[in-house]
Amino acid sequence: MTRLLLLFLLVSNYIYAQKPNIIVFLVDDMGWQDTSVPFADSITHYNKLYRTPNMERLASEGIKFTNAYATPVCTPTRTSILTGMNAAHHGITNWTSPQKNNNTDAKDDELASANWNINGLSQTDYPRTVKATPFPQLLKDAGYFTIHVGKAHWGPNGTPGSNPYNLGFVVNIAGHSAGQPQSYLSEDNFGNIPGKSSVHAVPDMQEYHGSGIFLTEALTLEAIKSVKGAIQRKQPFFLNMSHYAVHVPLMADKRYFDHYLNVGLDSTEAKYASLIEGMDKSLGDLMDFLIKEKQDKNTVIIFLSDNGGLSLYPARSIKEHIQNLPLRAGKGSVYEGGIRNPMIIKWPGAILPNQVSHSQVIVEDLFPTILEMAGIKKYQTIQEIDGKSIVPILKNPMLIQEKILIWHYPNKWISKDGPGINYYSAIRMGDWKMIYSQRTGNKELYNIKEDIGEKQNLASSHPDIVQKLSSILSDQLRTWKAPMPIVKATHKPLSYPDQQ
Amino acid sequence: MTRLLLLFLLVSNYIYAQKPNIIVFLVDDMGWQDTSVPFADSITHYNKLYRTPNMERLASEGIKFTNAYATPVCTPTRTSILTGMNAAHHGITNWTSPQKNNNTDAKDDELASANWNINGLSQTDYPRTVKATPFPQLLKDAGYFTIHVGKAHWGPNGTPGSNPYNLGFVVNIAGHSAGQPQSYLSEDNFGNIPGKSSVHAVPDMQEYHGSGIFLTEALTLEAIKSVKGAIQRKQPFFLNMSHYAVHVPLMADKRYFDHYLNVGLDSTEAKYASLIEGMDKSLGDLMDFLIKEKQDKNTVIIFLSDNGGLSLYPARSIKEHIQNLPLRAGKGSVYEGGIRNPMIIKWPGAILPNQVSHSQVIVEDLFPTILEMAGIKKYQTIQEIDGKSIVPILKNPMLIQEKILIWHYPNKWISKDGPGINYYSAIRMGDWKMIYSQRTGNKELYNIKEDIGEKQNLASSHPDIVQKLSSILSDQLRTWKAPMPIVKATHKPLSYPDQQ
Repeated sequence: MTRLLLLFLLVSNYIYAQKPNIIVFLVDDMGWQDTSVPFADSITHYNKLYRTPNMERLASEGIKFTNAYATPVCTPTRTSILTGMNAAHHGITNWTSPQKNNNTDAKDDELASANWNINGLSQTDYPRTVKATPFPQLLKDAGYFTIHVGKAHWGPNGTPGSNPYNLGFVVNIAGHSAGQPQSYLSEDNFGNIPGKSSVHAVPDMQEYHGSGIFLTEALTLEAIKSVKGAIQRKQPFFLNMSHYAVHVPLMADKRYFDHYLNVGLDSTEAKYASLIEGMDKSLGDLMDFLIKEKQDKNTVIIFLSDNGGLSLYPARSIKEHIQNLPLRAGKGSVYEGGIRNPMIIKWPGAILPNQVSHSQVIVEDLFPTILEMAGIKKYQTIQEIDGKSIVPILKNPMLIQEKILIWHYPNKWISKDGPGINYYSAIRMGDWKMIYSQRTGNKELYNIKEDIGEKQNLASSHPDIVQKLSSILSDQLRTWKAPMPIVKATHKPLSYPDQQ
Repeated sequence: MTRLLLLFLLVSNYIYAQKPNIIVFLVDDMGWQDTSVPFADSITHYNKLYRTPNMERLASEGIKFTNAYATPVCTPTRTSILTGMNAAHHGITNWTSPQKNNNTDAKDDELASANWNINGLSQTDYPRTVKATPFPQLLKDAGYFTIHVGKAHWGPNGTPGSNPYNLGFVVNIAGHSAGQPQSYLSEDNFGNIPGKSSVHAVPDMQEYHGSGIFLTEALTLEAIKSVKGAIQRKQPFFLNMSHYAVHVPLMADKRYFDHYLNVGLDSTEAKYASLIEGMDKSLGDLMDFLIKEKQDKNTVIIFLSDNGGLSLYPARSIKEHIQNLPLRAGKGSVYEGGIRNPMIIKWPGAILPNQVSHSQVIVEDLFPTILEMAGIKKYQTIQEIDGKSIVPILKNPMLIQEKILIWHYPNKWISKDGPGINYYSAIRMGDWKMIYSQRTGNKELYNIKEDIGEKQNLASSHPDIVQKLSSILSDQLRTWKAPMPIVKATHKPLSYPDQQ
């Protein structure tokens, strides 16, 4: 063996040993208040209602972000995380259908769909996809064992994005084109009942069919099994622990359901709460497993949700749009209830425990953050990255990074309009947030710091700020060639905000 | 870094580089004659009919085994390969149901089912499974990247064996509890049609839904994708390339279908032939891929089928039990047509190309053979291994290893009895083969070398040989505690052959 090769082996093994394991713990449709961890200035009704002791534990070992953001719905967020691109840039502005070439926009009399990327994410050329390099591919190329467990939802059946293997994952368990499980119950085989299966039947979990084990628990067991192999091989791992919970269909996780009935919730809300607590148990089990395997001091955990909590009736059984209070509205909306994210990051050894950051961060920031955590400095991507590493914030939680945040949802999510729902864009700069209705051209302005509930529209009293935010937002949307809905009568796209 | 660690790294990297890649290319329900490679003494009608140029190519680069054997049906063979145990020993004597605790034996007026392991294979304690260490687990522990692609069928839904992840595989693509695909057609989403999915809907292949790509081709593409990752990481790989082809439902692989119609086959037989040729194309594609990646000289390929060709009418459209001629009967039978296997092994560098071995080998021999090829000498298994390494034969194809082969099928495969089908055992020693009907106690004796078609029963003229084979077979079945069918009237098991 040559000396050079020897040196290479030494160096490569040395670097190898240094790499931390990384877990992204992604919850589906979990709202900012669906936890006993207080993210608002004071402890809320919901903080007292929901029990998430393991999120509390994670927060006490890491940093809680009070101003973390996602997009209003799932596939856009999931793509932003994987690509580091803003949704207006990657063009997957709505959730993707399990069916190829199928536009999930609700029908509208006046507007035709924007030319968004209905076929999801791909590393190769494919019609109506965004072509980009997902960070798991870069982690894999750098020697990481990359595991996806749970909900994927990066593209329809028949497209590359339907298969996590095409996105840099070595292992895929239960991830496919669907955005929800047909059933959380192993008694239902998670939906795999001959003749009754829908596109939402959960794949790969045959071992648990009929076992009595709830989906959230089964996914956790599979994740642990796969991670264990990497630990035994002394290979650093990246785990995308992507729960189907707490997305509809709301079903009772029996381990927690009775408690919530006993405190007075109706059965729908008790089911929802039981999904949350089951998810929290999964987090705790993973943390316990890491301790047992002596990996807790070498494993980053990034906890987040993919959008705000669902606030529609009758999916939820209480009054609409109060589920994320003090935030306004919920999933699907550009108001804070649709986009604000209960994010917590633990990075043992590198950052101080039990910290809080009020810095404004958004899901695309995770791409450069994770690669920096993994010590991967030089890498090539197909796409230009919009996100900014938040490692400086992690290392100094008092630091407020200057940043402009943008949301762009040029789609009709549901048939009936709601607050900030259907055809909206938004921008936040500092404490100011402007909401833009693409259909009407109406602009609202809020001071988020003073008015987190977005109750007082200050647009008329601050036209200068509205104009400035309109201009910045429009320039950025133009740069990204952000898709816009088309007016059926004229066949022309709706205007960017500064054209109004 | 200490000198000891340095030495360890050097040594471990050196060993690592030495390990060959290993591919088991397992075809489902392919008969001994379903190929243009002649395995009999002369070229047969079927050799001229079916076109398998890539099997010819593999044979020209490796060793063709004319006396290789499997068991009469799939799960027993697949378990024997993975565990190194004879079916009489591992006790999975029939195919396993997708449904847990479900006995797949056909109903019988006189006999109740043997106490066989209806819940398949497991590494952990689980009711009615065989507990054993699969060789992929040992390969994985030794640093191999272990990939399963295609049909698995090691256990029912709700049991550990339903999931290849529990059997030592790092990657699983499209393997689950079912023994056949609902559809080979991507136009049918391989069976994943909402409301119409059966337990046989093929999992994991969402990327190909609606693509027009036939299942055999899609599995090959996925295998190549996964192998490529291992090659890039310079990690040795084990690929279990386990085709659903050529099992029913017989469906046309359009790339080859017309040719077989044109040579005069009816549509059923042309479909069957097209499945064979599509499978052969997969073999060729893998071989070409290895050349392109410069891995062809470092990759073992073991080609085999899991049992004889299906010979039932109307699944096949020609007369029953002539599909494996000159062999008698087909799948499900202990006659040669049910168990003889078109096996070819290529081991570049280690063995001479274009060789033929007439040594008698059986599927459980692959376990110690593969571990020896991988250079894994010391290993611990839960089970006692029945197979014997055939590496000495590979290195010297003229060598005839002395061996006694045993088949044990104490089950009712199909409602209607057929030749050697339902409740049979068999033993081969040298040229002699004895067939034992468990129900009737009848014994037949054939000289396989002189009478490969098992036409001349010599039992009455050679009672001494019958007695000797009965005694050896019975002793071995007793040692293995081989399950036997139960007489309903007496609640007692049927007799081993020497008790008759």
